[in-house]
Amino acid sequence: MASRTEYLTMRTEEPRAFVNLTEKVRDIVRRSGVGEGVVLVSSMHITSAVFVNDNEAGLLSDIEAWAERLAPRGDYAHHRTGETNGDAHLKNLLLGHQVLLPVTRGELDLGPWEQLFYGEFDGQRPKRVVVKVLGDPR
Amino acid sequence: MASRTEYLTMRTEEPRAFVNLTEKVRDIVRRSGVGEGVVLVSSMHITSAVFVNDNEAGLLSDIEAWAERLAPRGDYAHHRTGETNGDAHLKNLLLGHQVLLPVTRGELDLGPWEQLFYGEFDGQRPKRVVVKVLGDPR
Amino acid sequence: MASRTEYLTMRTEEPRAFVNLTEKVRDIVRRSGVGEGVVLVSSMHITSAVFVNDNEAGLLSDIEAWAERLAPRGDYAHHRTGETNGDAHLKNLLLGHQVLLPVTRGELDLGPWEQLFYGEFDGQRPKRVVVKVLGDPR
Repeated sequence: MASRTEYLTMRTEEPRAFVNLTEKVRDIVRRSGVGEGVVLVSSMHITSAVFVNDNEAGLLSDIEAWAERLAPRGDYAHHRTGETNGDAHLKNLLLGHQVLLPVTRGELDLGPWEQLFYGEFDGQRPKRVVVKVLGDPR
Repeated sequence: MASRTEYLTMRTEEPRAFVNLTEKVRDIVRRSGVGEGVVLVSSMHITSAVFVNDNEAGLLSDIEAWAERLAPRGDYAHHRTGETNGDAHLKNLLLGHQVLLPVTRGELDLGPWEQLFYGEFDGQRPKRVVVKVLGDPR
Repeated sequence: MASRTEYLTMRTEEPRAFVNLTEKVRDIVRRSGVGEGVVLVSSMHITSAVFVNDNEAGLLSDIEAWAERLAPRGDYAHHRTGETNGDAHLKNLLLGHQVLLPVTRGELDLGPWEQLFYGEFDGQRPKRVVVKVLGDPR
């Protein structure tokens, strides 16, 4: 089996942001030497999400508004600890903590509009994403 | 390692539909020669979902109504591109883009009521689902 | 390839409960002999969830209240079968059916606050969770 593990450090300028990770993960897959396998891309924090969707600015603003509607900023029991990011934990659950992408013939095997996003909901500090490629060598 | 990758082409007659993929994926697992491993089943489109739930008609109508309530058809910023399927993108995020099922002793290893569904929210055209089985040979 | 499959039987005293599975899964990973790989942790029932979040009591009560708000107990078409747990099926979809955790140098590779939870929404009876570790031997 071939494998490769890399950690991406995300530090968004804004508290909330979406970052397209597709090319970074494509490069890691190529460097991994894996021909037939999968790549796990997972947030290592529970206040940010990893998800697949379309890279269209209007849609990304729709996703942000939707997450805010279903998991709004507000008062949460979690805030009794001094934290203020209860909504970010719920947005992680709503949009998803991780994705697993297929690797076929040494390449990310995505549909025409599938793009991989990191969704930050409590940013402006360094956070990590683990990328692990596993499979048969090329 | 053994592996097998197949692509299912889905073309639902209705714009919205649920399709039970369990038997199709079970067959692919058997043909893969994998004894101990996993099978990734992932939509290659971001307007349809892949999820596990119970194959009960009332429940499936509940799931459809619930997805419509939380991610309703309506006006979205995404529609400025000419698209009309903003809600389908959100339903993908709500119900999930993919599942990973265990393969044990050469068979799909599911609980008594676990069934695998494709959820279409913008159908009537061909869309693909990737099925990738990976693991130790039988 | 090394692999190990274990089944955890969950039987919560309350109808709804969150159970921290992190240490149990960490032990299974160590016993698996896998050095570089992944561990799939998946509910085998569709009325309970497996998800990653922070082990903080206030936050867990926020997650429970949020799931109840978005997928409330109530009357569902599914109940025509005699079942009363329609909301539990929707909570499974909302919080997630499974997670895939990275295994690096023989250990669960988690961020500082990542903890693994079983979320029961229709408990007081035995239910199973499958844990499958796969990867290169240590």
